[in-house]
Amino acid sequence: MAATINQREFSFLLYEFLDTEKLLERPRYTEHSRDIFDSMLETANKIAVDFFAGHNAKGDEHEPVFEAGSAKVIPEAARAWRAFADAGFLSAHWEVEEGGLQLPEVVLRAAMAAFFAANVSTAGYPFLTIGAANMLRVFGTDTLKHSYLAAMGDGRSSGTMGLTEPGQGSSLGDIKTYAVANPDGTYRLFGQKMFISGGDQDFTDNIVHMVLARIQGAPPGAKGISLFLVPKFLVNEEGAPGERNDVALAGLLHKMGWHNTTSTVLSFGEQGGAVGYLLGEPHRGLAHMFQMMNEARIGVGLVASCIAYRGFSESLAYAKERPQGRLPSAKDPLSKQVRLIEHADIRRLLLAQKAYAEGSLALCLYASALFEDQQTHADAGERARAALLLDVLTPVVKSWPSKYGCAANDMAIQVLGGAGYTKDYILEQLYRDQRLNPIHEGAEAIHGLDLLGRKVVMQRGEGYRLFVETVTAEIERARDVADLKGAADALAAALGELSAVTPILVALQATDPDRALANATIYLDVFGKITAAWMWLRQAYVADRALAGCSNAVDADYYRGKLQAARYYFQWDLPGTAAQFALLRSVDTVPYDMQESWFQ
Amino acid sequence: MAATINQREFSFLLYEFLDTEKLLERPRYTEHSRDIFDSMLETANKIAVDFFAGHNAKGDEHEPVFEAGSAKVIPEAARAWRAFADAGFLSAHWEVEEGGLQLPEVVLRAAMAAFFAANVSTAGYPFLTIGAANMLRVFGTDTLKHSYLAAMGDGRSSGTMGLTEPGQGSSLGDIKTYAVANPDGTYRLFGQKMFISGGDQDFTDNIVHMVLARIQGAPPGAKGISLFLVPKFLVNEEGAPGERNDVALAGLLHKMGWHNTTSTVLSFGEQGGAVGYLLGEPHRGLAHMFQMMNEARIGVGLVASCIAYRGFSESLAYAKERPQGRLPSAKDPLSKQVRLIEHADIRRLLLAQKAYAEGSLALCLYASALFEDQQTHADAGERARAALLLDVLTPVVKSWPSKYGCAANDMAIQVLGGAGYTKDYILEQLYRDQRLNPIHEGAEAIHGLDLLGRKVVMQRGEGYRLFVETVTAEIERARDVADLKGAADALAAALGELSAVTPILVALQATDPDRALANATIYLDVFGKITAAWMWLRQAYVADRALAGCSNAVDADYYRGKLQAARYYFQWDLPGTAAQFALLRSVDTVPYDMQESWFQ
Repeated sequence: MAATINQREFSFLLYEFLDTEKLLERPRYTEHSRDIFDSMLETANKIAVDFFAGHNAKGDEHEPVFEAGSAKVIPEAARAWRAFADAGFLSAHWEVEEGGLQLPEVVLRAAMAAFFAANVSTAGYPFLTIGAANMLRVFGTDTLKHSYLAAMGDGRSSGTMGLTEPGQGSSLGDIKTYAVANPDGTYRLFGQKMFISGGDQDFTDNIVHMVLARIQGAPPGAKGISLFLVPKFLVNEEGAPGERNDVALAGLLHKMGWHNTTSTVLSFGEQGGAVGYLLGEPHRGLAHMFQMMNEARIGVGLVASCIAYRGFSESLAYAKERPQGRLPSAKDPLSKQVRLIEHADIRRLLLAQKAYAEGSLALCLYASALFEDQQTHADAGERARAALLLDVLTPVVKSWPSKYGCAANDMAIQVLGGAGYTKDYILEQLYRDQRLNPIHEGAEAIHGLDLLGRKVVMQRGEGYRLFVETVTAEIERARDVADLKGAADALAAALGELSAVTPILVALQATDPDRALANATIYLDVFGKITAAWMWLRQAYVADRALAGCSNAVDADYYRGKLQAARYYFQWDLPGTAAQFALLRSVDTVPYDMQESWFQ
Repeated sequence: MAATINQREFSFLLYEFLDTEKLLERPRYTEHSRDIFDSMLETANKIAVDFFAGHNAKGDEHEPVFEAGSAKVIPEAARAWRAFADAGFLSAHWEVEEGGLQLPEVVLRAAMAAFFAANVSTAGYPFLTIGAANMLRVFGTDTLKHSYLAAMGDGRSSGTMGLTEPGQGSSLGDIKTYAVANPDGTYRLFGQKMFISGGDQDFTDNIVHMVLARIQGAPPGAKGISLFLVPKFLVNEEGAPGERNDVALAGLLHKMGWHNTTSTVLSFGEQGGAVGYLLGEPHRGLAHMFQMMNEARIGVGLVASCIAYRGFSESLAYAKERPQGRLPSAKDPLSKQVRLIEHADIRRLLLAQKAYAEGSLALCLYASALFEDQQTHADAGERARAALLLDVLTPVVKSWPSKYGCAANDMAIQVLGGAGYTKDYILEQLYRDQRLNPIHEGAEAIHGLDLLGRKVVMQRGEGYRLFVETVTAEIERARDVADLKGAADALAAALGELSAVTPILVALQATDPDRALANATIYLDVFGKITAAWMWLRQAYVADRALAGCSNAVDADYYRGKLQAARYYFQWDLPGTAAQFALLRSVDTVPYDMQESWFQ
């Protein structure tokens, strides 16, 4: 058992489940090869094992401390950051002329998975830095890029996203941080940001914050928010950090998990104003920010998949070793104890984890492939289709892995029993780390509202229709395989239920949006279950075909495992949607009708 | 919001939902009154607030440390222990001649709930001491009682249960600790015990361990285990502790939660043998131990209920205060923000928590009332019926609150969003503390096997039939109330499903026990959901009747809250059993068939 993701899983997902090799036909990737992709993944795996996994528990034990106005992090995190940057992962997906390797998005994300599985809270820093640099690449002026981008690519500078404030959480239209224009075109920012991950640390020369603020006099609400680049240190013309900007670390938040990722309160403008540079257009900042938020949402899904996968793999290793009692059929107390994995309920806990972890990983890489197509597909129509489908799927890609990742890590503890509750094993830390994922980058309810209130209705339902069409194509393909027909029919039935209930809820939004959206979180959950079933049907299809022509016993067993996990999902999880559809169909109002005074 | 349980909830559960006042007719309680019961509850609440709640976070932050062979606990825990003991709670349920107050079991447990809600890990010490003392009361010789009981009643001594060992977890038949008979009738014990809660601390003069060990030459397996009282210090004739016994603290386990309850590894007999006194009959130790285990199992259910209740009440208070965004219908960004509780999904999270927390509390007090009837009902037939029903229900009383308590505490975090993930609020600690409950006193799977493999089949199904009969009586009563007819019918249907599937699984146990019991955990879950629905139907019945004659607006709202929580449970949770019954009916073997080599 490695501390990362089984490389066999990546080869299945990238080259069998997805058609990553086909990317090599695209002009951007003519210099690439499958060998290059694989060697990037191997490098990621090696660095993850050598520089990230080893201090995961130490980082959990030794939270960053607030010292002399700055956050001090354990030195292992600095070494991990340096190894990550030196291997070129911060800029791997950039264009060659930007200093990058033009690595496809889906390969980059597969590489990131190794780090998330090894040590999510140290990997949080590069994760955010990559997203922040992408903002600068898209919305920055040439001057700004010249000053700040190279350092974010080679690791001299990290990046963050500065959205949330103490007075508001998910409601970004209510932020109070404001910006005052300077005569030279720059701005001075004033205000406070909270829950800023990686907002301070002591291992880079600089930190580049992507900050949302309201230019004085801007319209109220979400339409008056602008996006600024606010560095910790201002830089000179060569990009070398000089004067300290007016951004102060006001405090560190202490959390249940992710200890080694600082979570900060930052004060802007306590000494005259923090210098900020407008990115993109004024008042369009929230729209711009959605690039980073959407990237981060898919990233959170991937993080959740990896934490779930790690828990699965650690609990599997334990279950294979640990003797524990006997089977119900064994009556002789002197008979040898069996190992945990021989107990049916332990296999259930392992198989469910496999279904959640590998299903999530498949979904997140599928989403990354859509992102790739949206950017580099030769056909403009296909680019648009990929973008539209990804837009619909984003709340699901964020939420389903997060929710069922928590369930998976819960099961991983249960496999170990009392041992799983102790700090002698990583399972309890994974459980704590995972719990953040249904919260950050939009709490679960936000994504339900986004899906049902926005994604499903946008473009008169065009995105929803594309989703149905795509899943239906998968169903049709699988129906021709005898062993998969039952699953395909079950998915078709669930999809039919979804398509029956969706227009009811969409129509009601016009007259009674509060009631129409009251059960949006449940809608998100069934949408997620259908999406996950789709991912498992697709994996089963691929595995079934591969098994037919497979002569290698280990590979054959691998494919049988995929087929059994798919069976599990269709037999054990998808049927649970029936009761949820009944609630949605009837537009149930039991929670909606609950009165505050009835809570006592 | 108090740090304990709303006193209104107790008055409902004890005097409306249960008929606790009727106990006053029994000879044992002639000196009692409702006022006395209530004043015990008020005292418990006051001590819980004054001595337990305040150091809950500190105990979490400052784990006990291993120092000079002993566990050192924060001083606040000692003061809490002293206050608890001085108020007489350790011996409140004992007979007057034992030095007790003859308090009914159900009132004692309601009093304990206040402590569990305030600070479960400090309350762990008295919880275990009460159980250990009950063992001594039942199985101890007069001499042993004379030596050890009084100190366990006034707080000079605590108590523990010593079952688990490093080499086995749930499989007690495999324990290796052994006992050698001394000529004077005492024994010397040798071996190691693990996960012993409260196994050492520094605030009592003595600790009395209830230890399972195998007398040399005993039969193998569960039928060769005996029960011993093994004190930390041997006592003189007056009961004063003298010589240190050969029980050594070998180490402290570090856990995800319950930090302030020491979890210990204890070594017996490293210096010639730990003196132990046989309790009850030789080789009958496991059967005897079931008294304490069953008491602890109901206790764990109660603990889980209280942690869930605390999370509910803390997240409710936050949701009432915190402004956050606007409703979907509000289009004006300048309109005032609404409070969290005004969002439908937040009300769902709160209502579900109410359904789980109050449903669990009702179930645990119902179980305590059965325990009471088993001991003190005037009619021998009724005593036997209560004992039988409690025996069937024990795995459910342990498991349902533990499982759905975890779900409730998860929701409590979600209500707060990012704030809930920080250590600024108690929610994340409750989430960690709660996670132990599906593990200790028998992991979830053990209770599934106990329920389906033992409880349902024992006495040719007599216990199961009594369960069905009791639930059916509740259904019949509720059917006469127009507003409850739908719920009553739904419960009758689910109970019908259970009674259809049970004989299938019982019959299969004769020929293929491994397959018959493969889905026992799912059986436990549906049994639990039906039991919870029964508890909610009963609460709804009481609330509906009370509301009809209620003139007080606050009380009326309280009853409306009960009715809405019942509606929630029947509308949102019970229907989920349909998919589970389908699995059970078909004796699904997907996890059972999964092969080890398919996991890669």
